Amino acid sequence: MKTKLPSVTAQLVENQFLRTLQDAFPRHPKQVNKFLESDAEILRDLPKPNGFTILKTDAILEEIRTGLYRDPFTIGWMAVTATISDVATVGATPDGILLQLQVPKNADADFLGRIYDGINAACTEYGVYVVGGDTNFSNETCVGSTCIGHFEGIWPLSRIGCKAGDLIYTTGKPGAGSLFAFNTLFQGKNLRFRPVARVKESRVISKFATSCIDSSDGFIPALANLGELNSIGFSLDIPVEDIITEEALAACEYFAIPSWLMLAGPHGDYELVFTIPPERQLNFLTAAADSGWAPTYTGTISSAPGLEFLYQGRNLHTDPSAVANLFSESDGDIQVYLQSLLQHHRSLL
Amino acid sequence: MKTKLPSVTAQLVENQFLRTLQDAFPRHPKQVNKFLESDAEILRDLPKPNGFTILKTDAILEEIRTGLYRDPFTIGWMAVTATISDVATVGATPDGILLQLQVPKNADADFLGRIYDGINAACTEYGVYVVGGDTNFSNETCVGSTCIGHFEGIWPLSRIGCKAGDLIYTTGKPGAGSLFAFNTLFQGKNLRFRPVARVKESRVISKFATSCIDSSDGFIPALANLGELNSIGFSLDIPVEDIITEEALAACEYFAIPSWLMLAGPHGDYELVFTIPPERQLNFLTAAADSGWAPTYTGTISSAPGLEFLYQGRNLHTDPSAVANLFSESDGDIQVYLQSLLQHHRSLL
Repeated sequence: MKTKLPSVTAQLVENQFLRTLQDAFPRHPKQVNKFLESDAEILRDLPKPNGFTILKTDAILEEIRTGLYRDPFTIGWMAVTATISDVATVGATPDGILLQLQVPKNADADFLGRIYDGINAACTEYGVYVVGGDTNFSNETCVGSTCIGHFEGIWPLSRIGCKAGDLIYTTGKPGAGSLFAFNTLFQGKNLRFRPVARVKESRVISKFATSCIDSSDGFIPALANLGELNSIGFSLDIPVEDIITEEALAACEYFAIPSWLMLAGPHGDYELVFTIPPERQLNFLTAAADSGWAPTYTGTISSAPGLEFLYQGRNLHTDPSAVANLFSESDGDIQVYLQSLLQHHRSLL
Repeated sequence: MKTKLPSVTAQLVENQFLRTLQDAFPRHPKQVNKFLESDAEILRDLPKPNGFTILKTDAILEEIRTGLYRDPFTIGWMAVTATISDVATVGATPDGILLQLQVPKNADADFLGRIYDGINAACTEYGVYVVGGDTNFSNETCVGSTCIGHFEGIWPLSRIGCKAGDLIYTTGKPGAGSLFAFNTLFQGKNLRFRPVARVKESRVISKFATSCIDSSDGFIPALANLGELNSIGFSLDIPVEDIITEEALAACEYFAIPSWLMLAGPHGDYELVFTIPPERQLNFLTAAADSGWAPTYTGTISSAPGLEFLYQGRNLHTDPSAVANLFSESDGDIQVYLQSLLQHHRSLL
C-alpha cells in the first residue's frame, strides 16, 4: 500500500504565539541564541568584575488582583522595576531579565501589548534586555521577572551592617507609593505608577553605606526589616511633615489623615533606604552631588529598638514591625487596614 | 507630655513565613548573603569558562490545574527538573535555582513541605542549590524556577544545526510521560512522576550533536520544533513498537490505543532529542558508553518536511506540527484530544 503523503503546512501554534513576543522585545547584544533557537538562553561575556553575580526574582500578582495596578503599562513597568530595585539595593548593575508571564487565555492583545510597552520602557530606563521567559495561561494575570546583574565594587551592600549613630537616608522623599494606593483604592482613580529603581544612585550609595534596603513595602516596613536584622532602632529627627512628599502631605491634610501613615506601607515608593556612618557623611554627600542627586536625610540609628518620630511637634514612639504587620493582620481588607492604622495612631498619642 | 514607650516585641509576620523557607533549603556554598540579609541574592565565583552564562525560567501551572500533577513531591521535583532539562539541552551545567512560588493562602503546611521535599530531592540530583525566590499568595498553586548555569565546552548546542542525513537519537526511550498522563487523567491513578533531566548525558551529547531539544512536550512535538526551525523532516526507521518504552507499549496493547500516540505529547518524557552526523556516530557512541549510558537510535533527518514512521509494519507519513497542535486545538479537553488523535490516526491509514 502506498504511503499517504499529507501536505505539510501546519505551524506550531505555540511558536506562533511566542513569535509575537519575539517582535515585542529587542535582543540582548550578548545573547548568542536567537528567539526559539534554544531551549535555554545563552549569553556570552556578561560582565563579572570581582566575580559577583547578582540574582533576584519578583512578581506582580497581588497588586493586580486587588485592583491596585489596573493600567497594563504600570503592570509591565513594575514587573521589571520591582526586581531591578532589589538588585539596586546591593549596589549592582542589572544586565538581563527573564519574564514570567501568566495571562488569561482570552487576554486582550492590546492589553498584553501595553504590558510589553511597560516592560520595554523599564528595560530601556535601566539599560537591560529581556533575554527569555516563560508564558502560561492562568486564571489571573501575573507578571514576574528574574534579573541577573553584576557588582563592580569591592563588596556588595546588604541589609546587615548599620550601627547606632549611623545616619538614615533615602534616595527620595517617601509617600508616593502610599498616595498612589490611597488614590487608586479609596478614591477610585486610574493612575499610572512609574517609580524609577535607584540603580544609578546605588553605585554611589554602595561606596559609603553600612546597610541598604528598598522601600517597596513602604518606609516603615523597610525600617522594620533593618531593625530586626541589626537589632537596632530608629530616631527620626526630621518632622514627618518634612520627610514625606508634598503631594502626600497635601492629600493627608485634605482627607484629615495623619501624615505619618504615608510611611506605613504596604505599597511603597521603591526608594532606597540606607545608613551612612557620620564620619562618611561629607564624602557621601559630595559624591551624591557630583552625580547629580541629593539624598533625603531622615534621622539616626539608635541602640534601643523601636521607632521614634516627630509628628505635629510631638515625639511619638512605636514598633515598626507592629506597624508593618497591620496590613497582613487586616487580611488584605483595606478598609479594615485604614481603621487599624488610625487605631494605632490614636494609641500613640 | 511624656512619650509613650510601647514594648517592642512584634516580629515581621512576612519574615516569620519566609524563615520556614530558610530551614527548607540548604545554602549554596558560593552564596555571600545569608537568608533575608539582602534584597537580592549575591553569589561569588560561579564558574564561567569561555564566558557562557545559561539562563532558563519555567513553571508548573497547567499540570497542577488539570490534575496531571497532584502529588506535591512531583510538583516540586518537576518545577526544578523542567527548567534544568532545558539547561541540559545546550550542554550546560546548572549552578543555582531561584524559586517562584504561588500558593493559596490556606495551603496546607504538609503539602508545602512535600513540595519542598521534591524541590530539594531534584536539587540534590542535579547538584544545584536554591539561592533565592519569591512567594505570592495565589488562587491556584504554581511552582516555577529560574536556573543559572554555565557551559564548559567550545560552543553551546541549540535547536539549530541538523541536516539531512543526521541520525536522530534520544537519551532514553520515549513514552513514559504520555503513559503517566494517560494513567493519571484517564485511569484516575495517583502516581509520582520523576524523570531525571539529562544533565550528565548532555555533556557528551554537546561534543557531537548538531542540534538538541528536550521532549518535555512529547517526542513528536520536539521533532516538530526541529523540523520548523531547520526546514527538514524525519524518517524513523525503527518501528514505533521498538522506540517507546515497554510499559507504554503494554498499556497501548491493553487499552487498544495506537502505540505511536505515546509520542504525541503534550506531556513529555524530559529526554533529550538530538541529532548526530553519521561520521561522528562511532565516536559519539563510544563516548556515551564510556560514561555509562546507551543512546536510543530512532531514525534519520530527511530533506523533505514531515514525519515518516513505521507502525505495525506500515510506513505512515504525517506532519509533526499538525500532531503537536491537536492538543491546543482541543482547548485542553483531554477526551476531545484523544478522539482527535484517534481521528488523525485513522486519516493516516
